[in-house]
This record gives sequence, C-alpha cells and structure tokens, in this order.
Amino acid sequence: KDQYRIAVIAGDGIGKEVMPEGLRVLEAAAKKHRVKLSFDHFDFASYDYYEKHGQMMPDDWKEKIGGHDAIFFGAVGWPAKIPDHVSLWGSLIKFRREFDQYVNLRPVRLMPGVPSPLAGRKPGDIDFWVVRENTEGEYSSVGGRMFPDTEREFVTQQTVMTRTGVDRILKFAFELAQSRPKRHLTSATKSNGISITMPYWDERVEAMAKAYPEVKWDKYHIDILTAHFVLHPDWFDVVVGSNLFGDILSDLGPACTGTIGIAPSGNINPEGDFPSVFEPVHGSAPDIAGQGIANPIGMIWSGAMMLEHLGEKQAADSIVKAIERTLAERTLRTRDLGGQADTSACGKGVAEMV
Amino acid sequence: KDQYRIAVIAGDGIGKEVMPEGLRVLEAAAKKHRVKLSFDHFDFASYDYYEKHGQMMPDDWKEKIGGHDAIFFGAVGWPAKIPDHVSLWGSLIKFRREFDQYVNLRPVRLMPGVPSPLAGRKPGDIDFWVVRENTEGEYSSVGGRMFPDTEREFVTQQTVMTRTGVDRILKFAFELAQSRPKRHLTSATKSNGISITMPYWDERVEAMAKAYPEVKWDKYHIDILTAHFVLHPDWFDVVVGSNLFGDILSDLGPACTGTIGIAPSGNINPEGDFPSVFEPVHGSAPDIAGQGIANPIGMIWSGAMMLEHLGEKQAADSIVKAIERTLAERTLRTRDLGGQADTSACGKGVAEMV
Ligand SMILES: CC(C)[C@H](C(=O)O)[C@@H](O)C(=O)O
Ligand SMILES: CC(C)[C@H](C(=O)O)[C@@H](O)C(=O)O
Repeated sequence: KDQYRIAVIAGDGIGKEVMPEGLRVLEAAAKKHRVKLSFDHFDFASYDYYEKHGQMMPDDWKEKIGGHDAIFFGAVGWPAKIPDHVSLWGSLIKFRREFDQYVNLRPVRLMPGVPSPLAGRKPGDIDFWVVRENTEGEYSSVGGRMFPDTEREFVTQQTVMTRTGVDRILKFAFELAQSRPKRHLTSATKSNGISITMPYWDERVEAMAKAYPEVKWDKYHIDILTAHFVLHPDWFDVVVGSNLFGDILSDLGPACTGTIGIAPSGNINPEGDFPSVFEPVHGSAPDIAGQGIANPIGMIWSGAMMLEHLGEKQAADSIVKAIERTLAERTLRTRDLGGQADTSACGKGVAEMV
Repeated sequence: KDQYRIAVIAGDGIGKEVMPEGLRVLEAAAKKHRVKLSFDHFDFASYDYYEKHGQMMPDDWKEKIGGHDAIFFGAVGWPAKIPDHVSLWGSLIKFRREFDQYVNLRPVRLMPGVPSPLAGRKPGDIDFWVVRENTEGEYSSVGGRMFPDTEREFVTQQTVMTRTGVDRILKFAFELAQSRPKRHLTSATKSNGISITMPYWDERVEAMAKAYPEVKWDKYHIDILTAHFVLHPDWFDVVVGSNLFGDILSDLGPACTGTIGIAPSGNINPEGDFPSVFEPVHGSAPDIAGQGIANPIGMIWSGAMMLEHLGEKQAADSIVKAIERTLAERTLRTRDLGGQADTSACGKGVAEMV
C-alpha cells in the first residue's frame, strides 16, 4: 500500500505516556524500511473525554476511525473514577464487537534481560502464541436475575458459541500453526465439567483439524493446561481458547515470561473489513501514571504486531529485534525490569536500534 | 466420637495402588492418637464395576455409603475406555451434588524436598488454601443446541449462581480466613468481562465481608489472578472462587508448588448432613497404572484432611508432619520427585514417621 492511515488513541493513565514512544519507534522503523504511515490522533475512548461529554466516544466514532487501516491504542479504564463496564464496554469491547475483531492474538515469549519467574528458563525456551476468540463465548451479556433481594435470588448468564464464531477462530489458529516450524496446536477445553459448550468446541476442533493434516494438535482441560504453562511452557506453539480461557491464558503466559508489563496484543479482524486494534496488555495502571516511569515496550511491541498485520514484516521484525537488543542493556531497561531508564529513555533506546 | 465409619472407594488406575498406602498411614495415626476408624470397602465408582454392571454405581449407592462419616476415595476415570461424562458425572460429580458437598478445599503449600518451578521459592513461602464452590456456577448442565449440522448451528450453556449457593461458600471461606493468622481472603472474579454472574458474586462478597470485619479481603480478575499465582504466590492466604475459577486455581496452585502429584482435596459438606469425600487431585493416571510407582502422598495427605474434618486435628497434624519428614528424605521419595522409592516404600516411610 502507498500509505497506511493509522488512528491513534492514547486513552488513559500510562497509555498517554507510552504512546509517544510507540509512535517514535514506528516512525523510525517506517523511515528505515520506506513504509509510509500517517497518524490521526483521537481523544475519545478515555476518561477525559467521558468527563467532558458524558460518554466514552462520539456518536459517529465508527465514521471517524472505521476507515483507517489500523488503530494504535494505549490503554483505557480508571476504575476509581469510572466503572469498567462503562469505560471498557464503551470502547475496547465495542471495537471488538462492532469491528468484528474476532481474533485476540498475543505472543508469549521469554525475552533477553527479563528474568522469568520460572526456574531455569532461558530466552528461546518459551515462544508461543495464544489465540483467543474475541467476540462471543462467555462474554455474552445474555442472562439476568430473578427474585432479587430475597433468599431465592439467583442469576444466570449464558455462554454462547456459534458455528461461525468457533470455526473462524479455529481456522485462524490452525493457519497460524501451519505457518510455524513446529506446526503444533493446543486447544483449551473443559468438556469434563462444562458439558454442553465445551464438547461442542472440541467437536469443531476435530472437524477443523481434518483440513490441516500437517498440524499436530492436542487438547487439555483448562485446569491442567494452566498447570502445564508453569511446568512445561516449552510444550506449546499455538494455543487456542474461548473468550474466557484465552483471556486467562494470555495473562498467565506473559506472567510466565516475567512480566505482563511488556506484552503486546492485537484485536484482529483478519478479513480487513474493519480496522484492527493493537494495544499493550498492561492497561492504564493508575498507580504509576504521571511519573514517566511506565515501561513502553508493550506499546512498542504492539506497533510491531500492527506492522506485521499490515503486511510490513521486515519493518515489524526490525522492531522486535530492536526490543530484544534494548532489553539486553540494563541501562535502557525501565525500573520494573531492574533498570533505571524512564519511559522516554527506553523508547529512544529502541528507536535508535531499529 | 467413639468410632468413625469410613467408606473406602479405591476406584480406577493408580487409585488402587495409592489407596493401601493411604489406609496404612491412617491406621498408624489412628493407633498413635487413639482414634477408632473402621473401613468398609466398595468396588463401585470404577471402570471395573461399570464393565460388569453397565453403570458406575448400584441403584442403592446412597444407602450403602450415605451413612458413613466420610468417604476415602482413590481416583475415577479411564478416558480411553469410558467417557468422562459417564465415569465422572456418574460418581464424583454425583457425590458432590447429591451429598451437597458444596466446598472443594485444597491446600497450596510448598513442601520440603519438592522443587518449585518458581525461581527462588522455598518451603514456607507458599502456604494458602483454595476454596472452590462445588455444586453450581459454570457446571450447570442447563443449555442446548439449535440448528444442528447447519451453518446457523449454535450452543448455549448457562452459568447459574444462587444466593444460597454463593453465600454459603463465601461464609466457609471467610470463616477459614478468620481462623488463620493472616486473616486474608482473596476473591476471584471477572466482572469486567462476564457481566451478570460475576458482578453478582462480587456483590455477595461485599455483603458477606461486613460480617467479618477482622478479615482483610481483596479481589482480582481471574486473568491477572493466575498471573499473580506465578509472580506473587506469597500474597495469598485463602482464595475463593466459583466452580470453574476454583477448579483452575486449584490445579495452578499445586503446579506452582512443584507437582499436582502430591496434592490432596476435600469435597466437603460442612454441616455433616452427608459424608464428605477426600481424594488426591491426581486422578487415575492410566499411563503409569500397574507399575507400582505412583506417588501415594496425595492419597495420604487426603487422609489427613479427612481426620481434620472429623475433628481429629492432632492425628491429622501428625500425618502432615510425617509427610514433610518423608519428602525431605530422598530415599523415601518416589521417582516423580527424583527419588527411587516405589509406592509402598514411600507409604511405609510416612507410616513409620507418624
Ligand atoms: C474431573 C473434573 C470433572 C473435575 C472438575 O473439573 O471438577 C476435576 O478437574 C476436579 O478438579 O476434581
Ligand atoms: C478489560 C477486560 C474486559 C479485558 C478482557 O477480559 O477481555 C482484558 O482482560 C483483556 O484481556 O483485554
């Protein structure tokens, strides 16, 4: 493409602090690899916007950002000021649903300079992807409460899995596994306890596997799977799970590689009918906001995922390599990783290595 | 009590091999502490029984074991021969429901001689309980499938939380926290994503907390909570979760302490209207069954939990101490823990130290 139009939303808290570093590194990589990026900044999907306008986003948010090639997103949410169901459901989860970003993709990778909490694991030992269904499943909002405020009170909430929804995420996961040297897919299930939806998930995995004879696949119940993440993180290559299971595994995985502070993520609409969102996993982190000490690596790495999604693999790879080189230098690491650099020194470090 | 009547069900696979060691140690502790135990053995809730009778249990199973003071249970299930929904739902999950064992209780404790996969953690660093709701929640069986075998196909399954069900498990967890030196309770939630049942859970936690002003409590979303299990296992004292969340945390917790091979569990009816079931977490492990190498510690430790539940705390403590001393001796450990002992040598070791 001649030029990519990127919608930039910094959002709340440390989102505002890491975003400039994300952009700095994107610009450096774009320049080096002759990729043309143009950035349009938006102030909505933030508490500040909400305070002024009484809603998280303008009515015409879809027109404003729906035509962009991708959305580069900092963080949203500030639980002390605004409930999550307003801030998150009014922005991030709205994007997922209305832009049909049915894939949530996160790398789990042990990086140099980041000590793993797992004894004896070294960079190279842990390197896999978590593929999460991002639009349906356990996050359905279908349900309700009966006999409120009495002893008989109860609530119900449905998990919903559609053939379309399950098959398309499995297809994405099998394709990804097929493209990797190990060609190994692991499916998260709980069919021995959750007796209707999870056996259906298993059934669709089995059906989809027929189309990918080269991919070795296995499945584990989510309880023992979380145990294997800790005991045998080297077993995994691509791990696919429902909305909830994928959510859990994609926090646990990064924790096993030392910190969720540097993990990136993509909320992806693979067909490209709508823009995809790329954001760090860490969130707005109100407790450290405003001090300039936030680790910008998650934001920067999300930029690399965005470039890869746009088809600019070389530029993407150069950022990931620059991240690795930066993390290996103690002076360029932020405090959470035992260094002394502030947010911008770390960001500049990566930009220079690109 | 003058004498406790224990129903003994060895079940399948390594259940049959670890059970004699569990009984050996119980007998040793009973003798030493003048506790009278009588054991009645039952062959149902096993694949062998199913093969002969076409069902997992006799029609009058409740009469047969419902009057006992507790059930000492090995393991059930043999996925290659019999589907889980037949074997597990026909025995273990039936017990939980029909004997109203609404508490699933598991210790997470780093023991001497068991290397933790977490770097730098030593015995004493990790010592908490997971309290799991064991009768409702995500394991509801309410739901179904529509438009089968078409493109429009979908399945739904309800999570059900009742006031009664939620309040009683929270009460148990708060009571347990209150009885411990740290008086700290952590609740697992996911109210930012699962928008009906989980906010209800949170609401009931807040209400229950008022009755326990001395207990400090906090809550984490399940995704980040699994990360904290790995990064900060020392933060926890008592952790309470729904049926699914508790299931996940009570496998992940033992994994963080080195192995689920030695973890015990109780399926408890606190009121004592029905017998409670005590069983090791490991399951029937068909892959190593018949070799005499299974680790009996999970079974033995479950016996200690049973004695404690029966009110025989001294006898229970003497078993836990004997387990610690046994695990500290490499010659008495089984192979999975780097030792050379077989199942019975390990069991005898514990019995002698009681
Ligand atoms: C076997 C299975 C149904 C069970 C559960 O999920 O409850 C098991 O994982 C457990 O924790 O006892
Ligand atoms: C904020 C929350 C609703 C969200 C989720 O559970 O999807 C988050 O945990 C994530 O993984 O992006």
